Amino acid sequence: MSVYLLDIPLAEAQTRLLEALSKANLWRILGTETIPLDESALYRVLAEPVWAKNSSPHYHAAAMDGFALQAEATAGAQPSTPIQILLIDGLVEHPGPAAQYVDTGDPLPAWANAVVPIENVETVDKDGVNMGNTRAPTAIRLRAAIAPWSHVRPLGEDIVATQLVLPSGQVLRPVDLGAIAAAGHSQIQVSRKPRVAIIPTGSELVPIGEPLIAGSILEYNSLLMAAQIRAMGGEAKRYPITADDLDLIGRIVREAASQHDLVLLNAGSSAGSEDFSARVIEHLGQVLVHGVAVRPGHPVILGMLDTSLGGSSTRTPGLRTPIVGVPGYPVSAALTVEIFVEPLLAKWLGRPSFKPDSEVAELTHKVTSPAGDEDYIRVAVGKVGRKLLAAPLARGAGVITSLVRADGLLVVPPGIQGMETGERVQVRLYSSRADIDRTIFCVGSHDMILDLMAQYLMANDRRLVSANVGSQGGLIALGRGHSHVAGSHLLDPASGDYNISYIRRYVPGAAVSVVALVRREQGLVVRRGNPKRIKSLHDLVRTEVAFMNRQRGAGTRVLLDYHLGKLEIAAESIRGYSQEEYTHLGVAAAVASGRADCGLAIAAAAQALDLEFIPLFKERYDLVAVREVAESDLLAPLWRLLAQREFREAVSRLPGYDVSVMGQLILEDG
Amino acid sequence: MSVYLLDIPLAEAQTRLLEALSKANLWRILGTETIPLDESALYRVLAEPVWAKNSSPHYHAAAMDGFALQAEATAGAQPSTPIQILLIDGLVEHPGPAAQYVDTGDPLPAWANAVVPIENVETVDKDGVNMGNTRAPTAIRLRAAIAPWSHVRPLGEDIVATQLVLPSGQVLRPVDLGAIAAAGHSQIQVSRKPRVAIIPTGSELVPIGEPLIAGSILEYNSLLMAAQIRAMGGEAKRYPITADDLDLIGRIVREAASQHDLVLLNAGSSAGSEDFSARVIEHLGQVLVHGVAVRPGHPVILGMLDTSLGGSSTRTPGLRTPIVGVPGYPVSAALTVEIFVEPLLAKWLGRPSFKPDSEVAELTHKVTSPAGDEDYIRVAVGKVGRKLLAAPLARGAGVITSLVRADGLLVVPPGIQGMETGERVQVRLYSSRADIDRTIFCVGSHDMILDLMAQYLMANDRRLVSANVGSQGGLIALGRGHSHVAGSHLLDPASGDYNISYIRRYVPGAAVSVVALVRREQGLVVRRGNPKRIKSLHDLVRTEVAFMNRQRGAGTRVLLDYHLGKLEIAAESIRGYSQEEYTHLGVAAAVASGRADCGLAIAAAAQALDLEFIPLFKERYDLVAVREVAESDLLAPLWRLLAQREFREAVSRLPGYDVSVMGQLILEDG
Repeated sequence: MSVYLLDIPLAEAQTRLLEALSKANLWRILGTETIPLDESALYRVLAEPVWAKNSSPHYHAAAMDGFALQAEATAGAQPSTPIQILLIDGLVEHPGPAAQYVDTGDPLPAWANAVVPIENVETVDKDGVNMGNTRAPTAIRLRAAIAPWSHVRPLGEDIVATQLVLPSGQVLRPVDLGAIAAAGHSQIQVSRKPRVAIIPTGSELVPIGEPLIAGSILEYNSLLMAAQIRAMGGEAKRYPITADDLDLIGRIVREAASQHDLVLLNAGSSAGSEDFSARVIEHLGQVLVHGVAVRPGHPVILGMLDTSLGGSSTRTPGLRTPIVGVPGYPVSAALTVEIFVEPLLAKWLGRPSFKPDSEVAELTHKVTSPAGDEDYIRVAVGKVGRKLLAAPLARGAGVITSLVRADGLLVVPPGIQGMETGERVQVRLYSSRADIDRTIFCVGSHDMILDLMAQYLMANDRRLVSANVGSQGGLIALGRGHSHVAGSHLLDPASGDYNISYIRRYVPGAAVSVVALVRREQGLVVRRGNPKRIKSLHDLVRTEVAFMNRQRGAGTRVLLDYHLGKLEIAAESIRGYSQEEYTHLGVAAAVASGRADCGLAIAAAAQALDLEFIPLFKERYDLVAVREVAESDLLAPLWRLLAQREFREAVSRLPGYDVSVMGQLILEDG
Repeated sequence: MSVYLLDIPLAEAQTRLLEALSKANLWRILGTETIPLDESALYRVLAEPVWAKNSSPHYHAAAMDGFALQAEATAGAQPSTPIQILLIDGLVEHPGPAAQYVDTGDPLPAWANAVVPIENVETVDKDGVNMGNTRAPTAIRLRAAIAPWSHVRPLGEDIVATQLVLPSGQVLRPVDLGAIAAAGHSQIQVSRKPRVAIIPTGSELVPIGEPLIAGSILEYNSLLMAAQIRAMGGEAKRYPITADDLDLIGRIVREAASQHDLVLLNAGSSAGSEDFSARVIEHLGQVLVHGVAVRPGHPVILGMLDTSLGGSSTRTPGLRTPIVGVPGYPVSAALTVEIFVEPLLAKWLGRPSFKPDSEVAELTHKVTSPAGDEDYIRVAVGKVGRKLLAAPLARGAGVITSLVRADGLLVVPPGIQGMETGERVQVRLYSSRADIDRTIFCVGSHDMILDLMAQYLMANDRRLVSANVGSQGGLIALGRGHSHVAGSHLLDPASGDYNISYIRRYVPGAAVSVVALVRREQGLVVRRGNPKRIKSLHDLVRTEVAFMNRQRGAGTRVLLDYHLGKLEIAAESIRGYSQEEYTHLGVAAAVASGRADCGLAIAAAAQALDLEFIPLFKERYDLVAVREVAESDLLAPLWRLLAQREFREAVSRLPGYDVSVMGQLILEDG
């Protein structure tokens, strides 16, 4: 087992690839093709600049429906002294002042140099009687002079023949297609789409939709990467899953390399016992880089393949096909494609590389980073008041939902080992600012209703981004101005009331609004059949019972401690009291998998994972917001939602919820 | 001729359409379809929320290549007092402390609760001899204790079964496809693509690629709109051009309406003699709105069609198909689709309507607007220093290149009749901020080399946006901080030198860099064969010669005035002296079309339009920038370009250019 990967800095890894491609004469547009100018040209990349073949308009055109005439003939026209001009049919050259009806777009008669719009004239019959707007007047009457070339679109107003319409490298938008057509072209030269082979390997992989057994992993990286390639302007081919077999992988890689511009070999790029990628690439060509100092994505391999090797190929020998050994975790795979493949496709297509907008935001939680690595931290981005905030999402490379939820990336450079809460950081944005502006940051206690709310709010032009840090963490975030709203169910052991005393402590000095969301049941979650016969908190001290706790500051933990105190049960007597999960579903999942026998959670979490639920307590769950924010446009759809029948019914259908309090104003300062 | 359109405010027009659609039960998702989860699902819109079918991971998985063990067995391990744990093959349940090799992603054995990464252990043989990393060790040795659940991805780390993965209305990105797959789905419910019929009408229209005669208009609106519809998630069908024939148009509209969700009837929406759209819609249904107070796009028609009318249709009667009478000018057509059709498609697809980001920018030129209309002004956007600038582009509704060049829209509300230079305005951005950041604003004199420069700079990650306001206008803009660089060829009649004295006047107090671009010939442009036998400036005073001048402040005009002065020719004696064009090509186009007999311009302009050129003078054309901007990263590729052989050769090939001075530093203050 070769376990040592090199930690090559990202820039050097990119340089090595660029140099190898330059050497193979592949650091350029791969090829061009002529395609007809129709809708299918949308988003293709111009391989040649477009110069205008004709002017547009290609003649002097009437810009309005009206009458063409010589501007000089209108000189002296006044409201009190109108000038009358004879209408002609345009077929004869008329000796004196004359006017001729023209529709918008009609060519200006050669003798005319202006158009007077129809709404600015009176039409009269041959005796000079005003006719109104009829179809057969014999003259027009004007009460104002007009300037030469009024209401005329002169030849070349839009485009002059030979001018540059669009530079090469342009990614074609709808208006570009129109302008190219206007300039006289009916076909265009675009760069051909780079062809990318995606080869998933791993005996543990199963295709999407297949039933799962322990140890089997759904193969969806190839789908993710194929969609990325497509979005970047390339063409992807997904190969079937290949088992961990060195020869087989080698054979498929060679075949794929001979038919594609780039090969992405997924997984097998680290140094485990079944990681064959490096060996395959070494055998068929050259490994340029194995291991880059980026996280996630560290075990990436960059190489060049010689498709004439190892078979009966008649190809010219030489390292002609780049290959990327893509790490197996989905976040690593997606970032590897963004970091290494996108610039390559951009070059091959001749377009500029994607450059995300970037913005300074305030970090809502500290992050630590491994020294020496460039660390890509996914963040949710929201705006509270005037402050743009970046909330770090789950760090694991296996957590694809962290990419789904990400509004941007915080890139921590190699020299820096961490960043503090409140630090101002540069964030590369994925989401548009318009999307960020309609984002509600809900930080605090987790409840499954938040998922439902997110779904309903989508239809009301709001995105609900919820971060689960427990009730106390939510109130602290609210106090710092790091969220719009906090979900909280903190029991005050002294008063028996919820949240208020905690709000005074963690959100001091601010006028707040507290609105009840639901009353809900808390209880013990156990496996089906309740094999350990757990009935109450007293059972937690039994040595054969393993408990799963919530983190410090979670309302559920406060609730537990309150009742343990009342029952005089010592925390130390409970096995697992120090084991923490961050959500109700996390606790339920721990029970479902046997990591624990029970945990305190809400009924919906038990139902979600088909577990049994032993109801113990009822508690109120509130939404808390600073008054000013609560009254903002941003939050209005949230409050409206609490009164919406459809939503209330959907919540009622979940087990253990009582919506009778929903929307009730608990406290409103100010 | 019915010439009076109503000026319905935009909001009311939109409301009328919405109400008619609601009444027809069409203000909703049109329909859904189940599609397989593959790359073709990219950018489709989820019609149903996606809830997780399974957890991910669906078992406790090793997060690293290493050894699974019970964390408790490592308690007390220290660098000086390592703990040794026996390796087992995993097939037997071992009684004592044991470890088992696992690859990343392998399920954790039921008896284990942690993984120690392979790089953190020593492997030893049965006699306790350190073996290094070989394939058949019998035990591992650890020199540090590990915590339970280290390097394990617990069940549900990414996704817990039943949680919301994505809300309905989500436009699917690559990572979304991955997450949906991870959550156990192999197909998804998406909204079906709305079907839009696009019917171009007009006897004057010719298809793209056909030869042009005066009065014929290239029909490219249908292409532009079809591409817009596609970009918005719909499916467009382009009908062939229909002549101006009321019955024929009616027949085709009815057929299209019966097969599509929306009909776009292009042109014929104003009130000219051949504008049939309103009559057709009235005949087949109901006109809701004719004429909206927006510019461009004013003559838009909104209506509803009853496809059971007027034929043998067996459809249920009722106003069931919306129709938009789209104005004929391309800018109007594109904006009509953005304003009226996009929100409709968004509703039908169930996704949020596009919301462009918006930004405050400083207006570089005053604009005037018709009172009462919502005015959509296309602007180029660039950043000079810290100031974001909005430069208004050509206003004509026929100027599609104004949309091509637009980085954004300035929407002037109905109540406001104009905005001043320097005013801070809100701009809806089309371009990304990253694109704006790489934009070089070149304002000043026009030269065709600027087109070439734009083309070459594209390959160097820069966009050159040039506005032609003449040399003097360019220096004034530079002095105001409204551009990065000015092109100028202003002759100082006193010194015989170029630009310097003007720079001191218009860019006072700033350190500037002046770099020569070219020496070029100026001369008289005349039609082929020089029918009026024009040879020098003396010919301009002949009464049968019509001249076309450049605007005040243009370097070419200064040059003309200088030589007229030397020759003692009075400006008033020249017919057309007061007629102004803004570019060399504009002058040439005026000559080509017969609007004038001659004009002073550069040779390249004459060549472009196949005209004759009578060389008269040579002049130097410089690029001027404020020193600090000149030395910025943004402009570096521009200066490098001046030394690039390929670019210099391309310029040399244009007639009348001398590149020997190119890149020469004329002046560098400071």
